[in-house]
Amino acid sequence: MVVTLRVRLKTRGQGDAVDVTDRVRAALDDSGLTAGIVTIFVVGSTAGITTIEFEPGAVADLNALFDDLAPRSAEYRHHLRWGDDNGSSHVRAALLGPSITVPFADASLTLGTWQQIMLLEFDTRAREREMIVQILGD
Amino acid sequence: MVVTLRVRLKTRGQGDAVDVTDRVRAALDDSGLTAGIVTIFVVGSTAGITTIEFEPGAVADLNALFDDLAPRSAEYRHHLRWGDDNGSSHVRAALLGPSITVPFADASLTLGTWQQIMLLEFDTRAREREMIVQILGD
Amino acid sequence: MVVTLRVRLKTRGQGDAVDVTDRVRAALDDSGLTAGIVTIFVVGSTAGITTIEFEPGAVADLNALFDDLAPRSAEYRHHLRWGDDNGSSHVRAALLGPSITVPFADASLTLGTWQQIMLLEFDTRAREREMIVQILGD
Repeated sequence: MVVTLRVRLKTRGQGDAVDVTDRVRAALDDSGLTAGIVTIFVVGSTAGITTIEFEPGAVADLNALFDDLAPRSAEYRHHLRWGDDNGSSHVRAALLGPSITVPFADASLTLGTWQQIMLLEFDTRAREREMIVQILGD
Repeated sequence: MVVTLRVRLKTRGQGDAVDVTDRVRAALDDSGLTAGIVTIFVVGSTAGITTIEFEPGAVADLNALFDDLAPRSAEYRHHLRWGDDNGSSHVRAALLGPSITVPFADASLTLGTWQQIMLLEFDTRAREREMIVQILGD
Repeated sequence: MVVTLRVRLKTRGQGDAVDVTDRVRAALDDSGLTAGIVTIFVVGSTAGITTIEFEPGAVADLNALFDDLAPRSAEYRHHLRWGDDNGSSHVRAALLGPSITVPFADASLTLGTWQQIMLLEFDTRAREREMIVQILGD
């Protein structure tokens, strides 16, 4: 059985992190399914999804790593093409990836206690994001 | 229901990027399935799969990031083992990962307009690649 | 059909790599399923899963990359919060991701000959890990 949800959420630009665990858990509860996988996928090429202990320190540390890897103010060839300023957003998003897959069993996500599902905005401006939460299972 | 395709494609060595979105879309159309996930997986440990806005600038920016993270000319312990020259390929591929999972609904991939599925070659020589496109759903 | 296994394994701290391919293959054999996906997911926010040619050189090269990206001895905001010393573990794990999805067909994983599934410990101390191996398919 397959259940697909489209979730809308607003972000405030590069580095903004959203803990989406509760929304995913609610979708799973509503589905009535007991075993399978949830795929969380962000539409667009300037945001990513991962898991993290969602507390401000760890999120800031991860953003600092991305700032170091792909500084916002560096020069990017992508800028030359479109006159955009979000080359750093594109490379960060491609590196992190747009989706994660989390198994569930006994009608519960198999996440650890200190492990949350996070959408991380990389774009240089506020965005309205669409996130797909899709549940496959029995 | 499960549909598995094995797709062959040629790459020209480190940094060569292939937009495989149309092949994935064609496989989905052929399957007749309307909701589920597509898993795109590259066989081998020196290439990766992600999504990106597939235009030459953004691809070059991502390659520049990988060149910086794991320079081709650096020394790698992997070289000592096999006399290979592709240590940079192995670490880049392990970091990016071999697969992504993309939900589909209403018989369409949930990709954004400017979001393509890309196979990125990291090996230091041209390769003939096998990519698995597997569709699970109803 | 869905089969979920919970696998326990011990790790020896940051950089310890475990080749879990044989356990995943055994789980697939036991399931009797012939086509679908296996999701391998590590519970917790200080370890990751990827594929690699599992030989000591390539694993050491990948660890060297992570040491460079997020040095263990650097200062992390996460440390200020909890008095922990594993900020480097959290950012490495978030970057690599907690899971991979591997298709199987004809009752075999689609991995390459030199491509193994690896759990990589990032925490600064030995851990007892729980890994979920979940098989969906026909």
